[in-house]
Amino acid sequence: MSNTESEYRFDPLQQRWVIIASERGKRPSDFQPQIDPTQGKFNPFAPGNEDKTPPEILSVPSENGDPWKIRVVPNKFPALRVEGQPNREPDGIYDSIEGVGAHEVIIETPDETSTIADRSIDDITDLLKVYRTRIQDLSRDSRLRYILVFKNHGSFAGASLKHPHSQIMATTVTPRIIQTELNASHDHYLRKERCLICDIIQQEIHDRERLITIDDRFIAFCPYASRFPFEVFIAPRHHSHDYTQSDDTELRALAGIMKDVFSRLKVSLNDPPYNFVLHTAPNLEGIPKGKENWPNLPLDFHWHLELLPRLTNVAGFEWGTGIYINPTPPEAAAKYLHEAESSL
Amino acid sequence: MSNTESEYRFDPLQQRWVIIASERGKRPSDFQPQIDPTQGKFNPFAPGNEDKTPPEILSVPSENGDPWKIRVVPNKFPALRVEGQPNREPDGIYDSIEGVGAHEVIIETPDETSTIADRSIDDITDLLKVYRTRIQDLSRDSRLRYILVFKNHGSFAGASLKHPHSQIMATTVTPRIIQTELNASHDHYLRKERCLICDIIQQEIHDRERLITIDDRFIAFCPYASRFPFEVFIAPRHHSHDYTQSDDTELRALAGIMKDVFSRLKVSLNDPPYNFVLHTAPNLEGIPKGKENWPNLPLDFHWHLELLPRLTNVAGFEWGTGIYINPTPPEAAAKYLHEAESSL
Repeated sequence: MSNTESEYRFDPLQQRWVIIASERGKRPSDFQPQIDPTQGKFNPFAPGNEDKTPPEILSVPSENGDPWKIRVVPNKFPALRVEGQPNREPDGIYDSIEGVGAHEVIIETPDETSTIADRSIDDITDLLKVYRTRIQDLSRDSRLRYILVFKNHGSFAGASLKHPHSQIMATTVTPRIIQTELNASHDHYLRKERCLICDIIQQEIHDRERLITIDDRFIAFCPYASRFPFEVFIAPRHHSHDYTQSDDTELRALAGIMKDVFSRLKVSLNDPPYNFVLHTAPNLEGIPKGKENWPNLPLDFHWHLELLPRLTNVAGFEWGTGIYINPTPPEAAAKYLHEAESSL
Repeated sequence: MSNTESEYRFDPLQQRWVIIASERGKRPSDFQPQIDPTQGKFNPFAPGNEDKTPPEILSVPSENGDPWKIRVVPNKFPALRVEGQPNREPDGIYDSIEGVGAHEVIIETPDETSTIADRSIDDITDLLKVYRTRIQDLSRDSRLRYILVFKNHGSFAGASLKHPHSQIMATTVTPRIIQTELNASHDHYLRKERCLICDIIQQEIHDRERLITIDDRFIAFCPYASRFPFEVFIAPRHHSHDYTQSDDTELRALAGIMKDVFSRLKVSLNDPPYNFVLHTAPNLEGIPKGKENWPNLPLDFHWHLELLPRLTNVAGFEWGTGIYINPTPPEAAAKYLHEAESSL
């Protein structure tokens, strides 16, 4: 592996892929403790610094005199690169693949201090449309099996720059967690001829105790087996496997429930660090050989957003078992978030 | 669920157990940011404060005038409790089990400042013997399917008290990560009639580039698909599925390689926060129905220690995919740790 390449490697014992991103290559002295690595750093995402990012992939024009409203650029320190062929190589008993994929940054707003809770529904809708456009565009590349949109907010949640941004990473392997969700959804469908997440939504509406907010199109609740305190699951109430098939009206409704939920979190937990991830169907242009059950995906998978506030540490027990200890029952978390409405 | 109980809950989509430990129940105001929660706190593990812990389960007498050398006590805020029956209950489409198990704390030394690197091989051997005794004792309880020994060092790695301590948690479910290791090892054995970890050890000895240190009995290397920078895998070179079958000579040899590896880490990375976990065979007294391949365990599983320095953050991409991005190739990490010997 050269210094400018990254590589997927498979762990034969724990049956998972990692990405060794040696361009970001760290020596021991690079790991000095920092209170908050985002403080006092040059902001390459600020208006005026457009030449400090790689050339932009897409930009949404501003209507209020800003140079732009949203910009999408390649990650300057990508963990995966578009160039190359994802050939699977043996390395003794191990397996590796060249680090082919995509790694983009979505600069969400010119305003360094704007959180999702602060923005207008129009602005959030524009961001969700950019997610849709980028997933659609990357899906044309049949080397890419999965395209993940995610966001890290706050240094404790892994954000290395404060300026609000989301990221997209597209991989030439199907991620373990996605594969687990696909398999579980498919098994459920085979038994019941119903979508698993549709059934979960129905139970959450019936039980009510984990419900945060609901409208005609979307539901937000704290999952029954939440890993983290105040974890939130947002999904469309009608069945849909593919985020990119959402029309503008649908995305506007999603923007509405996101503003609502992010506002409740901001008020209740004092703008906590968080990660969110969008789980949509894998790229059907990149169906791997031997995955013949995937054409059933439109019936059995259901796209959703997972929002993970980062209030607790993950420690030895979690790393050793994969079992998370959550000190806040989701019923209690939902009650706090539900009642937070009055203070918005 | 009452306020004094915890509960296992299964997530049907991601197919994993969580523990909802509501006795630790946290309200939003409990999650105020703290730089280091271990600072300035009362130390219930210090000599003289023995009455501030629950009654001790075991203690190793001191030879040098201290009141004790090692103490084992129940965790005062346990995530799991010994009382109760682990009945599996349906909750609509969900599954739950009463939070039965064990949660113990091993106070490793009377000295609040002592790291593993600082201790004598005799002292580390005594600690490893205590691990053996407690796993053996808990194994007699057929409700317990897995017994995990782990340690969190440093607040960033989840330690809530500074005084050196390890923990034991025993669960009535087989953890996902253990099940994956068991299945992968069993599949490998079925194909090759060889142990997977024996094969990995042979390749690491052959490749040498990820080797940190090796002696007649143990090997320490940075795994090929390391999740984290400077991750270390320590295993006996001869095949053995069960840590508790190690005799005193074997544990003394393990203490030697642990002192060596922890010293290299302390010197190279300035006493980094870390987690370590001991992966030994599941409790054969608690074999679940339908797991008839488990009697093959003595042939196909191989106990080991995983040492995970916590130098980087886990963020949205990892939570959304299960794929870890590691900026330090294990070959580079092993080179640093290998060369650290000269400065010990």
